[in-house]
This record gives sequence, C-alpha cells and structure tokens, in this order.
Amino acid sequence: MTLKNFDQKLTQYANLLVNVGVHVQKHQKILLSIAVDQQLLAHKLVDAAYAAGADKVVIKWQDNYVLKQFLNSTTDEMLTKIPSYIKDEADTLMNEHYSRITILSEAPDSLSGVDAKRLAKYQQALSTAQQTITEATINNRISWLVAGAANRVWAKELFPDESEEEAYDHLWEAIFTTSRITDDPIKTWQAHINELSKRADWLNSLHLDKLHYQAKTADITIGLAKDHIWEAAGSTDTQGNYFVPNIPTEEVFTAPNLHDINGEITSTKPLSYQGNVLTKIHLVFKDGQIIDASAEQGNEVLQELIKTDAGSRSLGEVALVPYDSPISNSEIIFQNTLYDENASNHLAIGAGYPFNVKNGTELSKEKLHQLGVNDSQVHVDFMVGSADMNIDGITQNGSIIPIFRNGNWAE
Amino acid sequence: MTLKNFDQKLTQYANLLVNVGVHVQKHQKILLSIAVDQQLLAHKLVDAAYAAGADKVVIKWQDNYVLKQFLNSTTDEMLTKIPSYIKDEADTLMNEHYSRITILSEAPDSLSGVDAKRLAKYQQALSTAQQTITEATINNRISWLVAGAANRVWAKELFPDESEEEAYDHLWEAIFTTSRITDDPIKTWQAHINELSKRADWLNSLHLDKLHYQAKTADITIGLAKDHIWEAAGSTDTQGNYFVPNIPTEEVFTAPNLHDINGEITSTKPLSYQGNVLTKIHLVFKDGQIIDASAEQGNEVLQELIKTDAGSRSLGEVALVPYDSPISNSEIIFQNTLYDENASNHLAIGAGYPFNVKNGTELSKEKLHQLGVNDSQVHVDFMVGSADMNIDGITQNGSIIPIFRNGNWAE
Repeated sequence: MTLKNFDQKLTQYANLLVNVGVHVQKHQKILLSIAVDQQLLAHKLVDAAYAAGADKVVIKWQDNYVLKQFLNSTTDEMLTKIPSYIKDEADTLMNEHYSRITILSEAPDSLSGVDAKRLAKYQQALSTAQQTITEATINNRISWLVAGAANRVWAKELFPDESEEEAYDHLWEAIFTTSRITDDPIKTWQAHINELSKRADWLNSLHLDKLHYQAKTADITIGLAKDHIWEAAGSTDTQGNYFVPNIPTEEVFTAPNLHDINGEITSTKPLSYQGNVLTKIHLVFKDGQIIDASAEQGNEVLQELIKTDAGSRSLGEVALVPYDSPISNSEIIFQNTLYDENASNHLAIGAGYPFNVKNGTELSKEKLHQLGVNDSQVHVDFMVGSADMNIDGITQNGSIIPIFRNGNWAE
Repeated sequence: MTLKNFDQKLTQYANLLVNVGVHVQKHQKILLSIAVDQQLLAHKLVDAAYAAGADKVVIKWQDNYVLKQFLNSTTDEMLTKIPSYIKDEADTLMNEHYSRITILSEAPDSLSGVDAKRLAKYQQALSTAQQTITEATINNRISWLVAGAANRVWAKELFPDESEEEAYDHLWEAIFTTSRITDDPIKTWQAHINELSKRADWLNSLHLDKLHYQAKTADITIGLAKDHIWEAAGSTDTQGNYFVPNIPTEEVFTAPNLHDINGEITSTKPLSYQGNVLTKIHLVFKDGQIIDASAEQGNEVLQELIKTDAGSRSLGEVALVPYDSPISNSEIIFQNTLYDENASNHLAIGAGYPFNVKNGTELSKEKLHQLGVNDSQVHVDFMVGSADMNIDGITQNGSIIPIFRNGNWAE
C-alpha cells in the first residue's frame, strides 16, 4: 500500500461507518461480518465502536475460498444440514438488538466454478436458519450498514492493466472517493444526507401511482405499493436510532407493487451475486410476476435465484439514481452491487422493505402483501440505468410528471 | 517471506498435521481454530482435509487484538455473559464428533495489559460454556491436534536483533525443523513415534509408585496415579482413530496422583499463558495440594489460575523430555508451551487425562479422583527441566530406579 495517508483515511472511513453508518450508541452491541484479509479495517472498526461506547463486537470472519472448498467437496446431505446453533445464534443476536456491519470485499467471481444448484441449496438452507437476521434487518428492528473494502484480487480484476499494488491502491482510492472521505467526512455526509432527503420529500409530495421507464433497454410500467414512502440515505430503527444503511448511497427508493408490474427490462451493468457475475439480465413481467428471465452470463444462477420462493418472481425495490452521479462519473464498474447500484437506477428481485409503506413495520405480512410489498428470502438488486433513460411518474388521476430525462433527474 | 521453498514446506506441514496429527478419515468433520492472519496455512489445511475425505471444516478465526479490546472495554456484566448459542455450538460439534485442529501463533504477550481478574472471569465463563469441548478432548472422544505457526510480532519478540522479515523466516524455519519437516515428513514421523513409544513401554514395565525430582530448582516427590499408563506421541480416540495430539512432541507423560505430591519446584522457562508471560513459577505442595505459589513475572495471573476451581490447586500431568532434545538444542525459548514443554520436563496444573489410567475414559469422575487423576476446568503446562536434573523412580516396594541423570534419560 503506497496510497498517501492510507492509514489516516482508513481510520476516517472506519469512524464514518461506525458513527454515521450504523451510528453506534452507548451500550450498543455489534455483529461485524468482514473478510479474513481485512484485519486492519476490522481493528479500526472495533476501536471506533468501543470508542463510541459499544459493549461488544462479535466478528464473523468470512473467507470465500474456504466456503468454495466446502461447497465443492461436501456431501449433498451435509450441504444443506445447517446445525441448530446457527439458528440459535441468529435468534439470540437479533433478540438482543445487535447492530450489523457488513463489509464487502470479496472478488466478484470468488465463488465461480461452484455448481449453481449446490450454491443455491446451501444459501437457501442458511437463509432459512438465519431468517430472523433478514427479518430484523428488513424491518429496521436493528440498525445496519453495508460498506466495502478493497481486496487485491478484486482490484486486479477491475484494473487488469495495472500492477497488483497499483490496482489495490486504485480501488481503495475509488472507495474513499465514492464514500466521500473528505477532510471532514462526517460534515460532508450531513450535507449529502440533506440533499438526498429533499429528493425523497419531493417524490413523496407527488403521490405517484406508477412509474413508466423508457430506454433502449426498457419499456416497463412499475406500480408503486399503496401508501408507499420514498426513502433516502438514512432510516430510523425501532429503537429510534437514525442510521445510514449503505455507504456510499446515492439512491432514493421505495417499494413497487408486486401485483402491478408489466413490460420488460434489461440490466445495464454486470451484477456480482454470490461470487458469480451475471450480465444482461432480461426480465419480462406480467401483472407483477416474472414470466420470462434470461442472462447472457450467469443464466443458471439467475434461474436458481428466481426459483427460490414465491417472492423471488417479483420485485421488492425501485430506486432512482441519476446517471450523472459521483460513482457513475468515476467510470468504474465495481462489479459490486453496493457501488454499482449507487451509480444507476436499479430494481431488486425479492423482498420489499416494510418501512417503504406507511406504518409498514407494524403491519402483518398479509396486509403488506395486499399493499403490494413483496416478501421473499432474497433481495437482489440489479442495475438498469442508462444515459437515454426517461422515467415518467403517473398519478392516480392519470397525469404524467417527468421524473427522469436522459438518465438524470428531470428537475 | 524469503524462506527457500516456503510454500512447499507449508504444504508438507499442513499435510502432516492433517494426515498424521489429527489423522483425518473419510467423512470426518473438523473444527479448526486459527488466527486471522494465518489465511494461507488455513487454506492449505482445508485443502488437505478435503483431500483426505473430510465432509466439513468449520473455522473459528481467532484475533487476540479484538479479544483484548473487548476485555478492556466491556461492562462487568457483558464480560461473563456468554450467549447460549456458544454452549449449543460446543455441544453440537462434540456430539457430532468434530475433530479439533488448533493452530497457535499469537505473540506470547498479546493479551498483556488486560486486567488479570477480568481475563480469568471471562475465561472461566467461556470454559464453562464450552465444557463439552474440554471433556471430549481430555477423554479422547474426538481426535485433536495442537500445532504452531509463525507470526511477525511473536518472531520479532523472539529474535529482536533481526529485521521483521528475517525474524519471521527464522521462526518459520524453527517450526519446520522442530516439527521434523524433512523430505518425507510422514516417514520421519513414523520412526519418531516408534522411538517415543519404546520409552513409554519401558516406563510402563517399571510399575512405578512415585518420582523423586532433584535439581537446584526442585526437590519434590510426585506420586503417580494408581493404574497409571505412560503415553507418548499418539493416542487412540473412542472411534478407534490413532492421532498425534501435539506436533512437535518429544514427551512421555502420565497422570500424577493428586493426593500424593510433596515438596517444591520452580519453573525453568517462561510460560506464555493467555497472552501473559509467567516466569519462575514457584510451587510448594503438601499431600497433593499447592500450599504456596508465586511467580516472578505474571504473579497475579498465576494466583487467578490456581483459584479457578478445586482441581487448579493440584497437578494433572507429569511429562518427561530429555534436556538434550531437538527443540532444546535449537536453543530457542519459543515462549509458547507447545514448543517449550517439548524441550523440557514439565508438569501441568489442573486436569489430568483419564486415558492416562487403565480404562480411564470409561471410569466415573469419583473413581478417577480415587485413583488420583485430577479434574479441573484448566490444564496449564509449565516447564521444570534443567541440565542438572536427576529423577528417580520409586517402586511400590521402595526400590529406586534411575530415570533421568543430568537432564537426560538415565539409559
């Protein structure tokens, strides 16, 4: 690492994640998921968390090489046999309101070569065991954060013409820049959060019924959930703690109506999903359901994904990001959803966020379904934005309001 | 790393640990405890385990910096509140006969600065939660292995006059040499195991009642448990799998009689225990019980250790290692028990191994106690060997048989 002031910037970054991202409070407990090769960042996060008054940081160290060897070597029976303590652990941590910090750094294709069906079976079994974590997260019963970190393999894949050291520096620099690590990151973030919140307020004031997307890669009408709320930047968990769940974040997003999606759309950036890269995901919808799906690369993984459960055949999120955004302007395709989704309009296959409808976190699953909020074990964002994309908002009485023109906010 | 053939030697080392150490069988499951900065060795162990037919390797990544920050920062309540899933996890893994591989690499003083009482409280709470692991290990209900790996901080502490890279290479080289990583380590180990087993057979043929240690640092008589068995190199677990629980190993050991230890002894090498260094541990025994204890360095940690439970005031192991052994000849004080105990006669405070008496793993705790086998949550070896040490064996009828003369085997 030869990046100027790297150690200082990494400290600022860790402080931002802890104090703005998950917004650690006195006596908070934290579940940190981070790769084994991110020891320095992990230590800085631990230090920042205890400095902010945390009581405990539990680390779940990740290593996709070890996971890959397991998936490739174990028996069919062991593959889906998740020991009972995994569920007990998930239940206990969520019951005690552990906040989650998840640091993504694995290379986009770190699980390539694993049989897609075996991977899906394992993931489904694990998701079922850890369902309380997904539910607590999606309902904001805990504060949570997803952020990134550079890894040499990932860096070299993004910048193949550079030396490994150069590529690694380049990726860290891109992460610091897109995460707005300025001289005073916390002040910068307060201004940024205000800016995004104004966009959300404007969209909420329009009371839209649906959005109509038009581009070379899209002709689709996406109904919005009844009583939907556009959110941006931050959320408030059920303990009243305001947190910013994604760093970086450039999006304004809400819940689509799972009963009312019609047309077709193609993804415009590669998606890294479970260690595989999916390109040109093409989905055709009728009355909210995917009736046809294909991908140029990673098609098998896509087919397994949409077969997960009833909800994996519809959408759970619609998010607006101007084509002319800092991440997009970096012209880097990170092949990591956290970054790429914040460079582009995107949608998510699978679960919707209950907090994206009025009083949503207090409503039953049936009521949420009725309002159009999707339920699923999965939530997989894919990028659909492009420079030629126009989006119209359509209100209950049929009037049309320009939302996006040529890939950017219409006003 | 500039050590010649490092990658090849590390692969041989991993293969030795898996195929001779824990002796992985088809469909075996493995619990690997290893530090976060040992990713390369971890991957090689995982590869070797699956190549040997293992079904699953669960890794518990260790990081003493993270542990230290927790111990220094958390509340008294959280310190000893071990969540229920930790016990559930321990019970499940032992119930399913997971074999254990533990790789030690943390610097000897990696937890120094932590309040000794807080550390002891935490360790005791954790040991209680994970008691099934200790019991399964000590009773050979599973196969298990403790081995080492070099760490830059540890290396620099051992070789302060060398550069960090040189010290790191030096420590790896010492680990490979003392672990007998030759051109054919598996063949070399078979010969070594035979050699040690012959020593154990000789001691078993003597049917000794007690040992009398005499040196500048020792004048103590240690009774041996009734029906004791001298073991060396390997053990057989209750599934019938022969394994070698320590690599390296130079010792021949058995269970002392907890009712019959009298005299005093001082440790001759520094002991690294829970991230603290203890020197010149001086213990006085009467009728098997420690009646006085002190240490020149780490005295507080020693006092907490012997207060753990009833069994932590007596001994659980007596082990014979010639002063003229490969580790001793390396003239390195590793400040790590795994190596230093195999360079020196040693004793252990705390639990004895039931397999060190006839049919011991099938006997009740009461019966074991009656035979003299100690029971405790702790088992802490400390080194007592020296160049001037003489040890006499005393038989039931009072005859004296020279066992050690001037620090080495008498014959």
